Amino acid sequence: MGQILSKELNKPFIVDGLQYSNWSEEIFIQMNESGIAAVHVTICYHEDFKQTVSNIIQWNHYFEKYKHLIIQGFTSNDVKKAYESGKTAIIFGFQNCAPIENDIGLVEVCHQLGARFMQLSYNNQSLLATGCYEEDDPGITRMGKEVIKEMNKVGLVIDMSHSATKSTLEAIEISERAIAVTHANPFFWHPALRNKPNDVLKLLSSSGGMLGFSLYPHHLKNKSECSLEDFCVMIAKTAEIMGTDSIGFGSDLCQNQPDEVVEWMRNGKWTKSIDFGEGSQSEAGFPPQPKWFENNKGFANILNGLRLVGFSSKEIKKISGENWMNFFEKSFSSAI
Amino acid sequence: MGQILSKELNKPFIVDGLQYSNWSEEIFIQMNESGIAAVHVTICYHEDFKQTVSNIIQWNHYFEKYKHLIIQGFTSNDVKKAYESGKTAIIFGFQNCAPIENDIGLVEVCHQLGARFMQLSYNNQSLLATGCYEEDDPGITRMGKEVIKEMNKVGLVIDMSHSATKSTLEAIEISERAIAVTHANPFFWHPALRNKPNDVLKLLSSSGGMLGFSLYPHHLKNKSECSLEDFCVMIAKTAEIMGTDSIGFGSDLCQNQPDEVVEWMRNGKWTKSIDFGEGSQSEAGFPPQPKWFENNKGFANILNGLRLVGFSSKEIKKISGENWMNFFEKSFSSAI
Repeated sequence: MGQILSKELNKPFIVDGLQYSNWSEEIFIQMNESGIAAVHVTICYHEDFKQTVSNIIQWNHYFEKYKHLIIQGFTSNDVKKAYESGKTAIIFGFQNCAPIENDIGLVEVCHQLGARFMQLSYNNQSLLATGCYEEDDPGITRMGKEVIKEMNKVGLVIDMSHSATKSTLEAIEISERAIAVTHANPFFWHPALRNKPNDVLKLLSSSGGMLGFSLYPHHLKNKSECSLEDFCVMIAKTAEIMGTDSIGFGSDLCQNQPDEVVEWMRNGKWTKSIDFGEGSQSEAGFPPQPKWFENNKGFANILNGLRLVGFSSKEIKKISGENWMNFFEKSFSSAI
Repeated sequence: MGQILSKELNKPFIVDGLQYSNWSEEIFIQMNESGIAAVHVTICYHEDFKQTVSNIIQWNHYFEKYKHLIIQGFTSNDVKKAYESGKTAIIFGFQNCAPIENDIGLVEVCHQLGARFMQLSYNNQSLLATGCYEEDDPGITRMGKEVIKEMNKVGLVIDMSHSATKSTLEAIEISERAIAVTHANPFFWHPALRNKPNDVLKLLSSSGGMLGFSLYPHHLKNKSECSLEDFCVMIAKTAEIMGTDSIGFGSDLCQNQPDEVVEWMRNGKWTKSIDFGEGSQSEAGFPPQPKWFENNKGFANILNGLRLVGFSSKEIKKISGENWMNFFEKSFSSAI
């Protein structure tokens, strides 16, 4: 890592723990130029296995067409390779367990196809765990316990970003490998149901897990009006709780997505009425990003902001990329 | 109904609220000879939509080949027609919500294909409700509430036989139409997790729902050794709680099924270890049926048994078929 990070004087080394943008050459170029060594991209919300495979085929098409800009990331080594050649590594993940349907055998198959993160639930109850918008949370289900074992075995990271609190705490306890909350902020800073309470933050860091700070306005204090300083002070306060080894970015950037996409993310096909999720009838679409983080170029603003609130260069390197790299290194391969 | 039941002197009029036999000409003939006017057959445990459609195609093949013995039952009228011509009406149902996957639009499609019952969960947590073997039960999920509305609309009956207690009580409360527990017994008689506590029995009957008494040994006091008298006394005691309008049969008969089938019913593909469900490692297979109910011919023994414990002919007619027929009549058509 030292060799790579020495380049940081020219270009930062950034790993983003989650994006779901409307992918294009323009975005890939922005990522390359901004020093995004790796990004965990969502390739599934509600899609079943076969539909997820179709999304992988679409990505294979991107990898072929834009091979000068992106490569698929299966391991932390792929991230190093991407960065050294000025490219960005794309790491697949699922925001729900829909792709494994009700078949535990699909866990290994999904890992073979490149999936490295899977949320156990997305807002609602799943076969494995409870989502953060359900009224009650009984914790990890019978099938969930079996699937966690299997994910541990193959090296598919458990992501509890959209899960409810009891399920999240239990997932950390049951899992024999560290888990991630790829994109969320602390509840103490902005009390959204998607943000995480202190007990989760503490158990996450003490177990070697990772939190990726979100830049999705519904997760920010004052939403689209959130100031860069407020965001960076929040990171400093979280570091007091979690230390500086378990935190990174997970921007949740949905660049250039039309509003139909957020409606689909919230509603899938589970309801015939409309669920507005974190939004409301009058503000149903994607909220505008804060001025200082409209796309990947905004990471430069955040690194400056972190300096201004007192983080050292070493700490900033950890937060911007090293922590995620260490996590990838220990998490993505088979447990055997 | 009067016209039909007058035939009862020669042959009883029986409706069975659930069977999952290894279907054959021999079984269809036994059903005809035993006066089984209708049977709710399970066509899905863990199958997704497409696999369930394959099972329907198999049934269409039976309907063609054995048209002198069985017809498909879509309405209570079909049951009358079947009985009048000495046949048995086959009514489709699902023991889990797997066929609707995560798509509420499949509820109407499944009803169009003939499904008339759907369990909201089978032993484990589902997208809709909690199963009876989960440690904790948070009740009906967000998607569950939407799907119940849709099932009410199209005339697909909610069946909570394998669901946990809180989920069952909530389903009864949320549903605008009466629901069923097609195959279970009272917990007071045999405290299996699959049997139902008194509060469920009371709310079920007061809301116009139906309980089908199970003859699956794991639901019986003394299991395979259960006596006919014990079984009939249990029905009498349940009638004291539920009255005589909300009870019927739901034998759970799995005639001629090999033991691999019960292993598959319990384990589907959700675990890589083996779950023995109501059985155990040493008694992993199907338990032997009580001598007095080895197949459909055993219903005659039960009708005699009910007479011996004091039920009137009128009450026996209700329990053996009329109650289910009344329930079918009010439940299977669209709510509009």
